[in-house]
Amino acid sequence: MIHQQYFLGIDGGGTKCKARLESQNGELLGEGLSGPANPAQSADIAFNSIIDAAAQAVASANLPTETIKTLHVCLGLAGVNIPAYRGLAEAWKLPFANTLLTTDLHIACTGAHGGQEGAIMITGTGSSAFASVDNVHTIMGGHGFPLGDKASGAWLGWRALSATLESMDNLMPSTPLTDAVCEQLQACKSVDIVAKALHFRSSDYAVLAPLVVAQAKQNESLATSIIEDGATYLTAVLLRLSELNPQRLTMIGGLASYWSDHLPDNIQRLLSPALCSPEYGAVALARQAFKEA
Amino acid sequence: MIHQQYFLGIDGGGTKCKARLESQNGELLGEGLSGPANPAQSADIAFNSIIDAAAQAVASANLPTETIKTLHVCLGLAGVNIPAYRGLAEAWKLPFANTLLTTDLHIACTGAHGGQEGAIMITGTGSSAFASVDNVHTIMGGHGFPLGDKASGAWLGWRALSATLESMDNLMPSTPLTDAVCEQLQACKSVDIVAKALHFRSSDYAVLAPLVVAQAKQNESLATSIIEDGATYLTAVLLRLSELNPQRLTMIGGLASYWSDHLPDNIQRLLSPALCSPEYGAVALARQAFKEA
Repeated sequence: MIHQQYFLGIDGGGTKCKARLESQNGELLGEGLSGPANPAQSADIAFNSIIDAAAQAVASANLPTETIKTLHVCLGLAGVNIPAYRGLAEAWKLPFANTLLTTDLHIACTGAHGGQEGAIMITGTGSSAFASVDNVHTIMGGHGFPLGDKASGAWLGWRALSATLESMDNLMPSTPLTDAVCEQLQACKSVDIVAKALHFRSSDYAVLAPLVVAQAKQNESLATSIIEDGATYLTAVLLRLSELNPQRLTMIGGLASYWSDHLPDNIQRLLSPALCSPEYGAVALARQAFKEA
Repeated sequence: MIHQQYFLGIDGGGTKCKARLESQNGELLGEGLSGPANPAQSADIAFNSIIDAAAQAVASANLPTETIKTLHVCLGLAGVNIPAYRGLAEAWKLPFANTLLTTDLHIACTGAHGGQEGAIMITGTGSSAFASVDNVHTIMGGHGFPLGDKASGAWLGWRALSATLESMDNLMPSTPLTDAVCEQLQACKSVDIVAKALHFRSSDYAVLAPLVVAQAKQNESLATSIIEDGATYLTAVLLRLSELNPQRLTMIGGLASYWSDHLPDNIQRLLSPALCSPEYGAVALARQAFKEA
């Protein structure tokens, strides 16, 4: 009787949870997609999303439901770099055979480098950096908006909106970018913008990021200065990452290709393309942790 | 029979509501102090705080409870510069004889100038500016943190904390200020600071502001550069205010005396001292609006 091993990778974030199920020899068997899985937001919701995504992956592979008990799993979750939230996830009674718990950053890095070690700079709604070199993990950034997340979509939008309000106070001239912000928000008075922005979250600011990118393409001066500040920050982080001597260095996330084109040549030369997805990285880590000899 | 008129001034903010009751000829009769009164946070709580503070002022003046129905009132409330929240306050069924509704900025300005028009720059937990010139009102700043509130206590603390995290990422050297921030937060790792700051509000950041002020006194370079940025912003706002030709220009709020000493001489020369409190200003406005000929 052939003893088949199954490896499941989970990528759990603030809005969704993805699962990828592979066979012993690396064949993709099934996938799953469910809701939020960030224990820093809600440990109960995260637990349910993980079970849901895993069950979907087993079902889509046409495997019996009880296969879930035999899975070798790597969970890559947002928030678990913070000890208190890691503790919540460690306390879960999960139904799998084995579970490796790590950060969303670790699986994204492993995926970007095709299952190997390396370093990544992520720029999407937020920003953060991660390196795995000789099994030593380094996290940079990821401080959350407004404390950090420089060069992220939220940061770009926040810079644009903040400047728009200063222009309305006549502390600086209005510009094509500040005009575009007013148009997108359908607000032409400072008080209307403040009212709209009163409960803005990172994702609301990030909606304005494409305006900065579009204006910078036209060489608009305000947009250009924001992009220059972001590029300066990314350059500093990427240089720090490269000093750790990672095998590969890659930018990922929604803004990665934009930023890659706007960094100094000597920095661009350090970068390699992303190879695979975070959930692929999670499967690779599950395989490294639990594969039978 | 002598017909006595009573004037009540209310200063309603996010944490407390103050009332000041004066007689027709300007004698202080009673005072009141109650809870939050910002309709942008909760219109119901604000309503109750206002009634509570007014009733306390009447009681402390040893006047009959029903005197509240005869009061000529000016309400100066945070948040009512935003039309939606102004609408909530306008819909209140208040028990007073007459009510003038205006902003906390307007009464603070009127108080600072002893019942007259003028302009103010407020720097406390937040920052904002207001001018009343020939009955035309101008608001600058007051955008809320993190969009604006530059040079405020929240902004100073945020700058210090953000720099502390960058120093932990080795993107800049640690300094006496970043060391002081770690000590105050009792956190020596980036992840511990991020965990603590996850739900920080303006007032939590503002707790760190005295560290910036203290280090700037020692000529610490990071603190000095933060103070210079704040002073540059305040200089720009104060110049804009002075261009409106106010009768007087005054800085108020918890950081006012600090900042006044750290502005260029030509700006310091524009400033006059604050004369009276916001609730005094509210009484003055009630008197101007409702005093019988």
